[in-house]
Amino acid sequence: MASIVRSATLRALRNGGPSFSGIAIRRSSLSVRAFSAAMSPPSKAVVYEQQGPPDVVTRVIELPPVEVKENDVCVRMLAAPINPSDINRIEGVYPVKPETPAIGGYEGVGEVYSVGSAVKGLSPGDLVIPSPPSFGTWQTYIVKDQSVWYKINKDSPMEYVATVTINPLTALRMLEDFITLNSGDAIVQNGATSIVGQPGSDEAKEKLKKLGADEVFTESQLEVKNVKGLLANIPEPALGFNCVGGNAASLVLKFLRQGGTMVTYGGMSKKPITISTSSFIFKDLSLRGFWLQKWLREDRAKECRRMIDYLLDLAREGKLRYEMELVPFDNFRTALDKALGKQGSQPKQVIRF
Amino acid sequence: MASIVRSATLRALRNGGPSFSGIAIRRSSLSVRAFSAAMSPPSKAVVYEQQGPPDVVTRVIELPPVEVKENDVCVRMLAAPINPSDINRIEGVYPVKPETPAIGGYEGVGEVYSVGSAVKGLSPGDLVIPSPPSFGTWQTYIVKDQSVWYKINKDSPMEYVATVTINPLTALRMLEDFITLNSGDAIVQNGATSIVGQPGSDEAKEKLKKLGADEVFTESQLEVKNVKGLLANIPEPALGFNCVGGNAASLVLKFLRQGGTMVTYGGMSKKPITISTSSFIFKDLSLRGFWLQKWLREDRAKECRRMIDYLLDLAREGKLRYEMELVPFDNFRTALDKALGKQGSQPKQVIRF
Repeated sequence: MASIVRSATLRALRNGGPSFSGIAIRRSSLSVRAFSAAMSPPSKAVVYEQQGPPDVVTRVIELPPVEVKENDVCVRMLAAPINPSDINRIEGVYPVKPETPAIGGYEGVGEVYSVGSAVKGLSPGDLVIPSPPSFGTWQTYIVKDQSVWYKINKDSPMEYVATVTINPLTALRMLEDFITLNSGDAIVQNGATSIVGQPGSDEAKEKLKKLGADEVFTESQLEVKNVKGLLANIPEPALGFNCVGGNAASLVLKFLRQGGTMVTYGGMSKKPITISTSSFIFKDLSLRGFWLQKWLREDRAKECRRMIDYLLDLAREGKLRYEMELVPFDNFRTALDKALGKQGSQPKQVIRF
Repeated sequence: MASIVRSATLRALRNGGPSFSGIAIRRSSLSVRAFSAAMSPPSKAVVYEQQGPPDVVTRVIELPPVEVKENDVCVRMLAAPINPSDINRIEGVYPVKPETPAIGGYEGVGEVYSVGSAVKGLSPGDLVIPSPPSFGTWQTYIVKDQSVWYKINKDSPMEYVATVTINPLTALRMLEDFITLNSGDAIVQNGATSIVGQPGSDEAKEKLKKLGADEVFTESQLEVKNVKGLLANIPEPALGFNCVGGNAASLVLKFLRQGGTMVTYGGMSKKPITISTSSFIFKDLSLRGFWLQKWLREDRAKECRRMIDYLLDLAREGKLRYEMELVPFDNFRTALDKALGKQGSQPKQVIRF
């Protein structure tokens, strides 16, 4: 179910708040002044001072309090996921590299802790998310301008609120923006368990079927001449999603019907996509790409929030489901190792602050 | 300038006329009866009895006269090109394989020789082309239903009439059907000389520039890190055409601007296309395919004829130009060898009957 979904621009860092930078740290440690009324609590945060392997370059440190200005909202974070895009950003394999030092994380959920004097419509205790998503959610307290925060219905399942923006929004856009799907149409995707290189166990298959998959195949099962013979009663897919590349992308292409579209949104195998000339000319396939970050950039804050509401309605009704593991912040290292695939196929890791 | 542009379905053979088949030959040779008024002259034709290397499997034979029925038109062919798609079809590397024995060729121009009693709007001496294009143009006389033939303005340059449907129509559709081009936009294409594996000589470069190219590069010139540095004052191309595959396709992708589209319409190198994940996600490229045969199938006879008129207007005005070599039918073997690339880079070979 996971996806390498891409994350924020540096611009997001300008939204004020405890955007961790070398300069900010120095100034804070010099000044014990100014603990006036409007300061945040200190924040425990996952930071990295340079790009590199996430288990090497990240550390958990305490950041000093920052001022809560009149338009700011201070949020006590409740939960934030470790997404593949978070990992890629720390690794530095992103086209837009965050300025370091930086705080990890790009989405999450929190509770309003305090508000500046000019803030309207948000009060302590409100459930909020940064929307559009933005940098630095792996920490206990965030201070950002009120415009950054979007209030969420309190009866929403907390772990879904924490994770709704990056992956489910990507899935929704990819389902809606490329072809017109009709009732009964099939979709094929690779990377269905989101952890690279893990052979799909029978258990994983059962889990994916419970989540709504009609058929689940491992790559070794697909080493047959006629993959479509495996489809049984499912129509040939009109749409395919690729987050792996290499052979796994070729398999998606094989399943697609005449005139079908494959959308690439990740490349977990770090291998390119290879496609025959005849797939374009005679099978009339279209290959496209999707990047949530670009989509969000196009002045879509309102649209984004409307879709978040829609997706959380689905989650409340039990129609949007995916596996997650909530992990206490103290166990961040273990969660990171699991997210890095070191312990085999694991559910999405969600840090609980 | 050439392109592997794809050709007809077997259905086209059903349009009556001397569609060469085992059965037809047997019947004709048995019956010396019925040389009534409405018979065609015998036809000298390039036939192949099975798929294989074109220089091995084709031979020129004389086919017996066939009946010109009341709705038929008998056309004396004047000229027909050897297109890469004709070669692919004879080789059997086409998804739709013509039933053999078959007559080569898929477009051409002729003069009406005689008409059936019910034919309206066509008279002996009229210049005509099969439109939409159809099988069996490499012969001296063709008999097909009047609906197959489209009358062409007699002041059109004959060699352009013979070749206008397959390549120029493909070029026009690819320019119009994928993106909206604005004045000043650039286009990049590979296979610009149409013969595979021939290093582009200075002479070839000059020829392509005379035909309208702003810049012409050989593959070896493009073995640099920053191909875009070569563009000088040309804007980054929004649209690319690929008829080669392999490395030549990768080069087209490199030139394309953010959000650009590459259309594949041939695969002369017989190598697949390889593309990185980031080209889809971060560069937002789209990869599509074009097949004239599919486009024509979609009930487009009228549209096709309108575009032929438009293209021939351009040819008359000297705005549509490409290099051709007219070759007497007696020298078919030489023309075929040239079309097969055996003699290096050569202009499009057009048989003159």
